[in-house]
Amino acid sequence: MTLSVYLSGEIHTDWREDIMAGCKAAGLDIAFSSPVTDHAASDDCGVAILGAEENKFWHDHKGAKLNAIRTRKGIEDADVVVVRFGEKYKQWNAAFDAGMAAALGKSLIVLHGADHQHALKEVDAAALAVAEEPRQVVEMLTYVLRGTLPG
Amino acid sequence: MTLSVYLSGEIHTDWREDIMAGCKAAGLDIAFSSPVTDHAASDDCGVAILGAEENKFWHDHKGAKLNAIRTRKGIEDADVVVVRFGEKYKQWNAAFDAGMAAALGKSLIVLHGADHQHALKEVDAAALAVAEEPRQVVEMLTYVLRGTLPG
Amino acid sequence: MTLSVYLSGEIHTDWREDIMAGCKAAGLDIAFSSPVTDHAASDDCGVAILGAEENKFWHDHKGAKLNAIRTRKGIEDADVVVVRFGEKYKQWNAAFDAGMAAALGKSLIVLHGADHQHALKEVDAAALAVAEEPRQVVEMLTYVLRGTLPG
Amino acid sequence: MTLSVYLSGEIHTDWREDIMAGCKAAGLDIAFSSPVTDHAASDDCGVAILGAEENKFWHDHKGAKLNAIRTRKGIEDADVVVVRFGEKYKQWNAAFDAGMAAALGKSLIVLHGADHQHALKEVDAAALAVAEEPRQVVEMLTYVLRGTLPG
Amino acid sequence: MTLSVYLSGEIHTDWREDIMAGCKAAGLDIAFSSPVTDHAASDDCGVAILGAEENKFWHDHKGAKLNAIRTRKGIEDADVVVVRFGEKYKQWNAAFDAGMAAALGKSLIVLHGADHQHALKEVDAAALAVAEEPRQVVEMLTYVLRGTLPG
Amino acid sequence: MTLSVYLSGEIHTDWREDIMAGCKAAGLDIAFSSPVTDHAASDDCGVAILGAEENKFWHDHKGAKLNAIRTRKGIEDADVVVVRFGEKYKQWNAAFDAGMAAALGKSLIVLHGADHQHALKEVDAAALAVAEEPRQVVEMLTYVLRGTLPG
Amino acid sequence: MTLSVYLSGEIHTDWREDIMAGCKAAGLDIAFSSPVTDHAASDDCGVAILGAEENKFWHDHKGAKLNAIRTRKGIEDADVVVVRFGEKYKQWNAAFDAGMAAALGKSLIVLHGADHQHALKEVDAAALAVAEEPRQVVEMLTYVLRGTLPG
Amino acid sequence: MTLSVYLSGEIHTDWREDIMAGCKAAGLDIAFSSPVTDHAASDDCGVAILGAEENKFWHDHKGAKLNAIRTRKGIEDADVVVVRFGEKYKQWNAAFDAGMAAALGKSLIVLHGADHQHALKEVDAAALAVAEEPRQVVEMLTYVLRGTLPG
Repeated sequence: MTLSVYLSGEIHTDWREDIMAGCKAAGLDIAFSSPVTDHAASDDCGVAILGAEENKFWHDHKGAKLNAIRTRKGIEDADVVVVRFGEKYKQWNAAFDAGMAAALGKSLIVLHGADHQHALKEVDAAALAVAEEPRQVVEMLTYVLRGTLPG
Repeated sequence: MTLSVYLSGEIHTDWREDIMAGCKAAGLDIAFSSPVTDHAASDDCGVAILGAEENKFWHDHKGAKLNAIRTRKGIEDADVVVVRFGEKYKQWNAAFDAGMAAALGKSLIVLHGADHQHALKEVDAAALAVAEEPRQVVEMLTYVLRGTLPG
Repeated sequence: MTLSVYLSGEIHTDWREDIMAGCKAAGLDIAFSSPVTDHAASDDCGVAILGAEENKFWHDHKGAKLNAIRTRKGIEDADVVVVRFGEKYKQWNAAFDAGMAAALGKSLIVLHGADHQHALKEVDAAALAVAEEPRQVVEMLTYVLRGTLPG
Repeated sequence: MTLSVYLSGEIHTDWREDIMAGCKAAGLDIAFSSPVTDHAASDDCGVAILGAEENKFWHDHKGAKLNAIRTRKGIEDADVVVVRFGEKYKQWNAAFDAGMAAALGKSLIVLHGADHQHALKEVDAAALAVAEEPRQVVEMLTYVLRGTLPG
Repeated sequence: MTLSVYLSGEIHTDWREDIMAGCKAAGLDIAFSSPVTDHAASDDCGVAILGAEENKFWHDHKGAKLNAIRTRKGIEDADVVVVRFGEKYKQWNAAFDAGMAAALGKSLIVLHGADHQHALKEVDAAALAVAEEPRQVVEMLTYVLRGTLPG
Repeated sequence: MTLSVYLSGEIHTDWREDIMAGCKAAGLDIAFSSPVTDHAASDDCGVAILGAEENKFWHDHKGAKLNAIRTRKGIEDADVVVVRFGEKYKQWNAAFDAGMAAALGKSLIVLHGADHQHALKEVDAAALAVAEEPRQVVEMLTYVLRGTLPG
Repeated sequence: MTLSVYLSGEIHTDWREDIMAGCKAAGLDIAFSSPVTDHAASDDCGVAILGAEENKFWHDHKGAKLNAIRTRKGIEDADVVVVRFGEKYKQWNAAFDAGMAAALGKSLIVLHGADHQHALKEVDAAALAVAEEPRQVVEMLTYVLRGTLPG
Repeated sequence: MTLSVYLSGEIHTDWREDIMAGCKAAGLDIAFSSPVTDHAASDDCGVAILGAEENKFWHDHKGAKLNAIRTRKGIEDADVVVVRFGEKYKQWNAAFDAGMAAALGKSLIVLHGADHQHALKEVDAAALAVAEEPRQVVEMLTYVLRGTLPG
């Protein structure tokens, strides 16, 4: 069984690398995908390719739509969507991805610290697992693919 | 043409009442639905009916799932989903609803102030309209149903 | 908001009547449906109409398929599927209905006593609510439609 | 033609191994998948990875949801879902899987002893074949892929 | 519970009238639909409205497509599709409708005499009931809606 | 049988009124819908409600998206989509609507003059009928609902 | 571009071999599938594996359902479904397959002699091509994959 | 991540070759497909294989349907559909393809000159990007797959 996993959300820590490295070390058969995590490129991609906009709304609009080509592909192809909410920022795109994943019937794993627990209760309620650490995601994917538990 | 409209998001101002009153005054044929907007009831509904939980996570979990019965029904039955982001709080459930609406192919209208523009760019990019005032939503629904413009 | 509710499962107690009476007393706008609960008619409907079978397997087969016309219609039209597991019998058709409801994206409410908790964990995990008493179902449907809590 | 086959249900006998060995011996092009069949791991996976729960309900809930990531993937990817009901236990998860498979339009094969015939009539009625022995499943899969009959 | 029933197939006997009259006499809440049963109009509708064709293939083609507007609507809106195969003619359109109904997940009832049993085995295998007489269809619909058996 | 019919395409002649008047005169049970046909309102609706744009592209973009709320609702609710191509203009939105209708499995009727025959061959190939006059559409809808032919 | 092609219908002439040989000679990248074409095996597969039936209806029923595992897989995986109607027999299963293919949005090619033209008009009306000779199917598949015409 | 891209629309300039060459030079992992771009073959394929037609409408009809086998396969398999509108001709098939792509939830990129901006506003409104040059499409696909911007 090969698993497709999309890693959505926070882009300012190394959680994606931690999960991918952990799964690779465990020899799991997983195809990972993720949004573009280069913040500057992600913000400016629309105008850089399709032409400048004076109005910041349309500047952002062009970029967000171009990013959506990659994001939709990643979510629609995924068996499992992992969404991480970091400590900072609004991260509405992470919650938006979680809503898409839920509506498409994907297995949803949410990753966040205890302080966000109440604010994320609707997102957590749609998930099959809520974790705090990337290590737990590696352990879950190991269990899903191998049936073995840590330790 | 009758239109089903779901009003998602912020629950601390009267924006829903403004839109419903405006549409009623205009005589529009619209069936509105919305989440439970009584904050205390919404937070505690799960444990109030299904039994107390010591752990706050499960307290919230039970409530969020019970609320999901109403939310899903509202979104799935809707032709148009209006999602409002207020000035305060994380409002991740609003973004989650927007993601569900987008994935289900609903016509999405997003309502927020200019200061949230950059943080909401992915949500706005999935919308058919982005407005700031409830009055504009009334005007759009009037145009959609009647073909007439304000003024 | 009108709600369609399908009441699946156990047929040897009055739980359906309790829920319907409670919702009627509360004045809720709900369209209930359910399988045929006359055990003898349900078992023999196939051969009674389509001709006798010597082999018990085909006797049952004809009846089960005829009942499926009603069951599928009820589940597919439902917003909410309530599945009750009683104290006795295998009740595999109840779990089968729950699986169909889950796969079709219906809001699932499971109703069972504490002694069945472990055996029903997979079914409960797919549900939006797990209750023990019909009264709790009435209270949940009241909350979903009205936003009000008991007491 | 490659066939994807999910083997659901009873975990206390070697029926899965029998089917897989028989198909391998026949040289059939089949990709098998199945739930985790290590009973202890399956029961405790949720708390082992995501943290202990005092309440047995939530202990089971966490585990059942984590197992659902694997189960859903297996059923959704399958062309054929084989569900075996053993002699003992409630096995409601087996009937739940059968309901999901039926609702998703999968080809369903049910495997059970004669004594369960009446109790499983609704499940059997949704199946394309009802067998008693793993050998028969091997013979059917051989026929489906090769067009040849046993003997 | 209101039931939508589409009556497909043979147009040279009164079986539709028998079923509709029987259901009306029983006071059942059913919305019936059916293809145009005026053979001459059905054959010539395309050219009568859209202009003559020299080639018989296109004459038939225009008519068959115009009839498909009604047929598709009837089948797609139906809960139950009843397909009758009469004694004569190829009746490939009846089998085609049955295939559409099966693929769309409709409850399929097939009506035919014993002499067609072997030739219709694939169609019967997709059905929830196989009957010989219109009276049996009335009895089944009565059972589905009321839970009562004849006699 | 009630039919929902969406009238897409050309907005500079009275073809919609002709069809609606003809069907009304015939007493047909049809619910018609259509895009906003006030050309000026349709072009400017976005900026009139949501604020002016300097760039003509975004001026048009806002308007086209607002119009899409009505268009999508009309097409998705329709049983039959009639698309008329007039003598003038590019009318790419008409062909776009036809593509949407085809992909959604709607019964498509195309209405155009003989001079557009070659250019519209792909659109016509997806249609169930190709006509030249609104009168023919009335006759077809009469036939679909009543089974009677003109004259 | 690889194409999946399912060859349904008549089993008494070599038309499948002709098409497969022609496509192989042309070097086309096509994955063919088809029903079991061994008439005796196809008729008796159910009872041979799952046990004898006294009643011919259930004998046929078991076989038809077992064959359906292969047929459904073939049609659902196909891009193109070719259905051939031969000179003899009722061939209702061929028309049934065509109906399934049409409902699932598959590209349908129908193959039959001129004498069946009127009786097959509804099936032909749902097809993208109607041909008389296997050679024409090879030519069409060559054109679809290569863009080249014969001669 | 492998991307499937369908290149629809104008067939009289080298824009497809430009995009494919640019993506190849960049080493992108993309599977391109497109309609048959040999204008004469595309117009005559139907009659060349399936027999001549006197009436030009049916000549075109046969060809358009045969081309649809390839077109549908290309669009349905695509992650991204690029539709180019050239300077000349009606190009209704391009807009039709765009409508199909939008209804199927494909990521749509539209390519056209500034003079078509107003006429294409509805098509552009359904797109995730609107570009003028093939080079921009190469840059977008590079960004989608690699996350890198030009320059």
